[in-house]
Amino acid sequence: MSTDSPTVGGGSFLIAWQLKSKHVLIVGGGDVASGRIESVLTADARVSVICPSTGLHPLAKKFIDGPHQITYHDRVFAGAQDLVGVDMVLSAIDDVAQSRVICSLCRERKIPVNVADIPESCDFYFGSQIRDGPLQIMISTNGQSPKLANLIKKRIERSLPQQAGKAIQKVGELRTRLRERAPGVGGQVSKRRMKWMVDVCTSWEMEELATLNEEMMKRLLDDGWEKNAIPRPETVGGIRKRGKRTASTLFSFEASVLPMLAFVAGVATATVLLASRTR
Amino acid sequence: MSTDSPTVGGGSFLIAWQLKSKHVLIVGGGDVASGRIESVLTADARVSVICPSTGLHPLAKKFIDGPHQITYHDRVFAGAQDLVGVDMVLSAIDDVAQSRVICSLCRERKIPVNVADIPESCDFYFGSQIRDGPLQIMISTNGQSPKLANLIKKRIERSLPQQAGKAIQKVGELRTRLRERAPGVGGQVSKRRMKWMVDVCTSWEMEELATLNEEMMKRLLDDGWEKNAIPRPETVGGIRKRGKRTASTLFSFEASVLPMLAFVAGVATATVLLASRTR
Repeated sequence: MSTDSPTVGGGSFLIAWQLKSKHVLIVGGGDVASGRIESVLTADARVSVICPSTGLHPLAKKFIDGPHQITYHDRVFAGAQDLVGVDMVLSAIDDVAQSRVICSLCRERKIPVNVADIPESCDFYFGSQIRDGPLQIMISTNGQSPKLANLIKKRIERSLPQQAGKAIQKVGELRTRLRERAPGVGGQVSKRRMKWMVDVCTSWEMEELATLNEEMMKRLLDDGWEKNAIPRPETVGGIRKRGKRTASTLFSFEASVLPMLAFVAGVATATVLLASRTR
Repeated sequence: MSTDSPTVGGGSFLIAWQLKSKHVLIVGGGDVASGRIESVLTADARVSVICPSTGLHPLAKKFIDGPHQITYHDRVFAGAQDLVGVDMVLSAIDDVAQSRVICSLCRERKIPVNVADIPESCDFYFGSQIRDGPLQIMISTNGQSPKLANLIKKRIERSLPQQAGKAIQKVGELRTRLRERAPGVGGQVSKRRMKWMVDVCTSWEMEELATLNEEMMKRLLDDGWEKNAIPRPETVGGIRKRGKRTASTLFSFEASVLPMLAFVAGVATATVLLASRTR
């Protein structure tokens, strides 16, 4: 939680909603609805889709025919009975009147709802999203500019450390093993565990964390946790990796090789010029 | 909506929840609760805090004493009656049994709830967050590594275009003006509006968009929208700005000034060496 950002209003409350085994109803099957289906499948939802087959986008069809937990109804939304046992509704149909009906039915039943094209009736909005394994990033402009959200998304994708997702996954595994080795909730052991994990995360490059395997984790816990130290990757059987090239990397191509080449070019130029003058 | 990312489960459903004028109950007043208060104030929620004054963190106290819409109750959670008219509950207390009670009371009433320290009982989780005006970014590792989420957050902050938030705000204003000038929902005009806005966003640097003022917007609409063109910033009264230095910027310091200095150093070195030899 950021406590250093200034408290100002006008924003949204960004959250990671849990849909595992929850029942999400998608009304509609066009291109927008297809994106919605994908988003909720990402979160392991149980999905129902209501849309006449004539209106199904190829992507929606692909999802429905695929190996996912989707129940498909080849018809239009039929009313309140379609909301029984439903935990969330995402509607994306070209019928504003019907959209409003769906909205108020959901509101009466306290079912969270998003209705495409009627922002004022939505409990929540979407943003541009990045996914890399356990890493998920959402970029929201609070409806001001979806295009800039998309451009910023691309910029962030380029700036992300290589294998960030894999590093996160491996650190998650390491944490689980550490908790098995030094169990207990709260108190000293919790604090020591947290501090040691933070030290590992800040001492190793993300690319190095991503190389963690079973043997390395065991050695890291034996030689690190047990001895209250943070061994380097190469001392637990790993390979020291250089960080990904970014503007903040000191020894980047631009900051090292290029000046070196330029220096050599300078020497060569001066030599040639002076040589031709002294001849 | 990303449609190019692979559809795999195991993730969350990242959303921007709308809390404007919604009633959020915060149970607890420690450091975690303080962060929660800040997050929901960001989204213009009406906030109630229930916590004995002896347990209030200075930050929570600051918020309660501040100019915000906060109702404070100097006591512990009293049961179901505290949930009347509440739209969301965030609990952060050091009492697991009481936390579980709050959770099930909320579930019965279909009130979205997050309870610190009992992840399996939460409807939603938080992530590391970045805020710059209308721009909001959330980084979630799905609970695998809060520390890496924080490191990635810092990396993203460094990679963001300067004044991204301001650019988004100005583009939002431009969109509103364009919609006033060329109103209508759906059909050709909607499509043309969307295409023109996208072209502006991709033709201008983010730093240039951030300089848009009233006069420039008027000229941009007159000379751009009306003539189906995308004028450059300098032709509508603005100044051409260079992009912020990032790894992807071709004319960065590392890629331009540094090699130049190195070249000069090379020339100088060779000159001195040759001069001393020929003397």
